[in-house]
Amino acid sequence: MRKVLLIGVGAGDPDYVTVQAIKALNTVDVFFLIDKGSAKDDLIQLRREICERHISGTSGTDYRFVQATDPERDRTAAAYGEAVKDWHHRRAEIFERMIAEELEEDGVGAILVWGDPSLYDGTIRIVEELTARGNVAFKWDVIPGVSSLHALTARHRIPLNRIGEPIHITPGRLLAEGMPAGQDNVVVMLDGECAFTQVTDPDVDIFWGAYLGTRDEMLFSGPVTEVGPQIVQARAEARERKGWVMDTYLLRRRRA
Amino acid sequence: MRKVLLIGVGAGDPDYVTVQAIKALNTVDVFFLIDKGSAKDDLIQLRREICERHISGTSGTDYRFVQATDPERDRTAAAYGEAVKDWHHRRAEIFERMIAEELEEDGVGAILVWGDPSLYDGTIRIVEELTARGNVAFKWDVIPGVSSLHALTARHRIPLNRIGEPIHITPGRLLAEGMPAGQDNVVVMLDGECAFTQVTDPDVDIFWGAYLGTRDEMLFSGPVTEVGPQIVQARAEARERKGWVMDTYLLRRRRA
Repeated sequence: MRKVLLIGVGAGDPDYVTVQAIKALNTVDVFFLIDKGSAKDDLIQLRREICERHISGTSGTDYRFVQATDPERDRTAAAYGEAVKDWHHRRAEIFERMIAEELEEDGVGAILVWGDPSLYDGTIRIVEELTARGNVAFKWDVIPGVSSLHALTARHRIPLNRIGEPIHITPGRLLAEGMPAGQDNVVVMLDGECAFTQVTDPDVDIFWGAYLGTRDEMLFSGPVTEVGPQIVQARAEARERKGWVMDTYLLRRRRA
Repeated sequence: MRKVLLIGVGAGDPDYVTVQAIKALNTVDVFFLIDKGSAKDDLIQLRREICERHISGTSGTDYRFVQATDPERDRTAAAYGEAVKDWHHRRAEIFERMIAEELEEDGVGAILVWGDPSLYDGTIRIVEELTARGNVAFKWDVIPGVSSLHALTARHRIPLNRIGEPIHITPGRLLAEGMPAGQDNVVVMLDGECAFTQVTDPDVDIFWGAYLGTRDEMLFSGPVTEVGPQIVQARAEARERKGWVMDTYLLRRRRA
């Protein structure tokens, strides 16, 4: 039976790859890559480098890449959830075709996911959709990775939580009206709009990072009202220079 | 100058160790271990096994362990935060003594942390306290790891978040009155009391795991009102058998 592995390769540094992921990489016949367009070509290249660096020996030498183009996503749609579901649905069709046409009956395919596959990534949902449709039969498994959550805090050398306190993780779009009510520790992901500029509370610190764990890494920390504007500028410059940016941050309200 | 590394070794499976952690392990002269008493001796043993398995070559063969006993923590104290701070404070004194007495002036020491050092673990705070006291000078760094958060979702093969939704991570004690208000996706850590039994909402599913990534791994999922009692029983039996249990879980409210 076919097998598909969703492998978390860590958030940025190729050395974030785990031993479990390396063992899994070495069993793979076909890596499925989704090309997001020229701006993010480095990310395709980084995935190839991870394979080259960590696949060795007789079992692992015989692998290949199958690449498809990411479907367009309607970013103007009023219903965000529906637009994402539609995009997942079209991605699922692409993966279904790649698995059916490119993977032998007893072959092992893999999708490499940045960070960890469970955290604001659609791949698990896509695979669930494929198994529900049932057009192509396969077993599947998930290999966890070091997420940007943990890369961010490690690089800032801070705990994610304070003693006894909860942590809130949210997409940037839910921050459009400032800190979520009642939350003092908020991690923000998928924020293309610098939503932290909506936070005007002088008692909130930001711990921000981009390109975490890579040679392009950027880190900023301090009161969000003070360093926020610096981040906006540095982020825009980096995005201009590289063509893409992946960032995440923690907002923490100081205690009295 | 002395250097102290806080190394996340992943949550359970020794193969969750990253390449970065392995490289760091191979630079270490002294591993500082805190013995939590006989019940958790396996955890000390597992740390030694990780070192044996991953340290090799000329640079890495010359390491040793320094072990101290964990200070008693006042679990009856009314003020939870103060009791934890006091415990951290006494742990800090132990680490300060170990670093000063056991680590050469240019030596590298390390503390191995389960999962990731930023997530409900006090080691970063302890090291911050030591550097603030300034009695012993050292550089320090944090190596991120695969946390139980990601091990849990990988083993259940589920995303942590639903599309566009936030995630709430909380210590078990804050769950004493049921699901936190307004939260539909709640990860619970440090829950010694099976706080999920307080959740009576029939629309909430639980995804529970213990000894994640190890041969003793236990997984349960389903409506919390149905599988909750099974978890309570299985957890008690496992704890009785092994002498300790480490578990975590996600509570998710089903959508209408």
